[in-house]
Amino acid sequence: MAVSGEQLDAYARLIVEVGCNVQPGQDFGISAYVEHAPFVHRVVREGYAAGARHVDVLYVDEQLRKTVVEVGPDGDLGYTPPWLVERRKAFDGQAYLLLRGHPDPTMFDDVDGERLARSRRQEEDAVWLRQVSDRRVNWALVSCPTEGWARTVFGEPDVDRLWEAVFRTVRLDEPDPVAAWREHTDRLEQRSALMNERRFDALRFRGPGTDLTVGLHPGSIWQGARDVTAWGQEHVANLPSEEIYTTPHAGRTEGRVRSTMPLVLSGRIVTGLEMRFEGGRVVETRADEGLEVVQAQLATDEGAAMLGEVALVDGTSRVGREGFVFFDTLFDENATSHIAYGQGFTSSVEGTEELSPEELADHGVSQSSLHTDFMIGGPAVEVDGLTADGDAVPILRDNAWQLG
Amino acid sequence: MAVSGEQLDAYARLIVEVGCNVQPGQDFGISAYVEHAPFVHRVVREGYAAGARHVDVLYVDEQLRKTVVEVGPDGDLGYTPPWLVERRKAFDGQAYLLLRGHPDPTMFDDVDGERLARSRRQEEDAVWLRQVSDRRVNWALVSCPTEGWARTVFGEPDVDRLWEAVFRTVRLDEPDPVAAWREHTDRLEQRSALMNERRFDALRFRGPGTDLTVGLHPGSIWQGARDVTAWGQEHVANLPSEEIYTTPHAGRTEGRVRSTMPLVLSGRIVTGLEMRFEGGRVVETRADEGLEVVQAQLATDEGAAMLGEVALVDGTSRVGREGFVFFDTLFDENATSHIAYGQGFTSSVEGTEELSPEELADHGVSQSSLHTDFMIGGPAVEVDGLTADGDAVPILRDNAWQLG
Repeated sequence: MAVSGEQLDAYARLIVEVGCNVQPGQDFGISAYVEHAPFVHRVVREGYAAGARHVDVLYVDEQLRKTVVEVGPDGDLGYTPPWLVERRKAFDGQAYLLLRGHPDPTMFDDVDGERLARSRRQEEDAVWLRQVSDRRVNWALVSCPTEGWARTVFGEPDVDRLWEAVFRTVRLDEPDPVAAWREHTDRLEQRSALMNERRFDALRFRGPGTDLTVGLHPGSIWQGARDVTAWGQEHVANLPSEEIYTTPHAGRTEGRVRSTMPLVLSGRIVTGLEMRFEGGRVVETRADEGLEVVQAQLATDEGAAMLGEVALVDGTSRVGREGFVFFDTLFDENATSHIAYGQGFTSSVEGTEELSPEELADHGVSQSSLHTDFMIGGPAVEVDGLTADGDAVPILRDNAWQLG
Repeated sequence: MAVSGEQLDAYARLIVEVGCNVQPGQDFGISAYVEHAPFVHRVVREGYAAGARHVDVLYVDEQLRKTVVEVGPDGDLGYTPPWLVERRKAFDGQAYLLLRGHPDPTMFDDVDGERLARSRRQEEDAVWLRQVSDRRVNWALVSCPTEGWARTVFGEPDVDRLWEAVFRTVRLDEPDPVAAWREHTDRLEQRSALMNERRFDALRFRGPGTDLTVGLHPGSIWQGARDVTAWGQEHVANLPSEEIYTTPHAGRTEGRVRSTMPLVLSGRIVTGLEMRFEGGRVVETRADEGLEVVQAQLATDEGAAMLGEVALVDGTSRVGREGFVFFDTLFDENATSHIAYGQGFTSSVEGTEELSPEELADHGVSQSSLHTDFMIGGPAVEVDGLTADGDAVPILRDNAWQLG
């Protein structure tokens, strides 16, 4: 069954109203792939309907990036034109949408992984991550199916099947999707509140290839899908969103972890990722595929090899219940529990919002120009909360939430 | 017969080597429609092969512009984000390509013409026109066929037929296109030299609906396809290019003129355009279609209603010999003689390159944020050069060049 214009418009409206929550008079920035142009027009229309003063679309062309990686001079890899940085800065205090859904997740399979990793525009990303971390933007990250993405997932370019799955994960099958999102985010907030009451000293993940202890800050704050900007504007940064998450102490991760799902990184698929941590830092990495992309990322800057996020997802997840790998981190990270190396969020650690980057690093909030999630949860992975006295409290068993 | 990858690469190479003449170490900026992405990748590849330091592509989405015209707030029409202006300025002293070839020249037929005209980003255009006028960029304007453009021309989306026509007009059917361009530009330079020796006081166009006298500067300089930047870099700004042109005195156009071909303006087709001039200024305008777009343009600024260019094309033109209307000014202006209202070129008037915009306007070099060509030549239009003594010297008769 072909996806209808009404369904696409409903998704565009959900993105604008629930995701970014664009306010009258705001500028509304959008980054999208060139392949998304027809859907972008619908989002733009909804953005103006919500009262946006100006909608600004920047099209990103992954085939172009591939060309640069293949034939561009060394100095042009990752070069960020100053205007791109200016553009990002202009959305301080405004609404922003990252429209993902890769045109072809296998596109970069045959290019040099190290050059590919260097093609990321760190300067632009750094501005963005700082805006997000400081809650200076009401933003959302959502995905728009493409034929290439559908082919990676299903083995055939069945883009309508992927659209239908996306619609279910974002609750567009509910009679009132906006009300359904309110209820869902309330539930995640209740879970976050339980975790915040407990104030665990650390989390422990145990499963095949995994025995990882992630030390938390005394002031680590758990939160769910509902985000609030520094000026009090609610939005939902990820559609779908099934996780509760916080920022761990960058110096207190110990042990080893094996990823439980593939991830897509710089357009490359990474499988069988394993890492060993000592004193918070990755000291050993291996993978079945895509290792060099991960290694290049870990070498990017001081904070890249330390954790900036830990997140819990249980088996009620609408993404997990789809039962297939989306090959898109936005979805797959909401299928199961995960961690991220790179930038930590000041909004997730009490009393850090006024600190400089240097002070944050000293305080154990990882500082990096990147933030890469990978999935470590599932039915075979037990998650405990460790108290300061060393007691272990079950949080997840066989994918079911335990904390009451 | 389908167009081959080799033909497309040869066109991309011609654009980079003859059109922009990209030099090693230069930045190479490109503006293209999203629909052009596959061809853009070829141009980018050739740009790097020519030694570009950085290739910067900005995708323009006309459907997005249509959306803004249809539903955007009044204040967003023509709003230029500061980053777009910064981006343009960054190409001062660099190479730039404008890739045209509209995705669908009839796209704007049903939108409000006045709002459409206001959707042009004047601030960005003004930076660009100043860079061009001051010869601060080695640039080219070329076109890439699209299905919508082919449909407008042929009544069916025969994009390969349009590609073949484009290839002929840019001499890609010659065994050595680069040598063919050298020969062609030499010939246009000889004609320019003849015109510059004569130093006519004015040109007179006479034909059906036309009796127009275009007064020249004593220092009006005629030139052909070969352009040279302020630092001596040769390039060919228009592919194809069949014209010799100069900048007339903005205050000395008198009489009436009828366009001899349709033109595409802000995505709208204008037919049957007629104008009457007094003291250099348009005082009366009519058209069969698209009048409001022209009128909105003429009202843009002080210089919009005065001539900034007059150009001569004879019947040997490769564009004219294709025998059909391209509905694309780049081609149609090279089919026959034309004039342009709006910005004049300092490089076409002796001793004006150091003058301020105010001084240029006083000097009779039209100052405007736009420059719109329209076609007034053809077999039925006689062109004479008028000497200071009032003698008339035939320049074009029945589309044949007369001046020896």
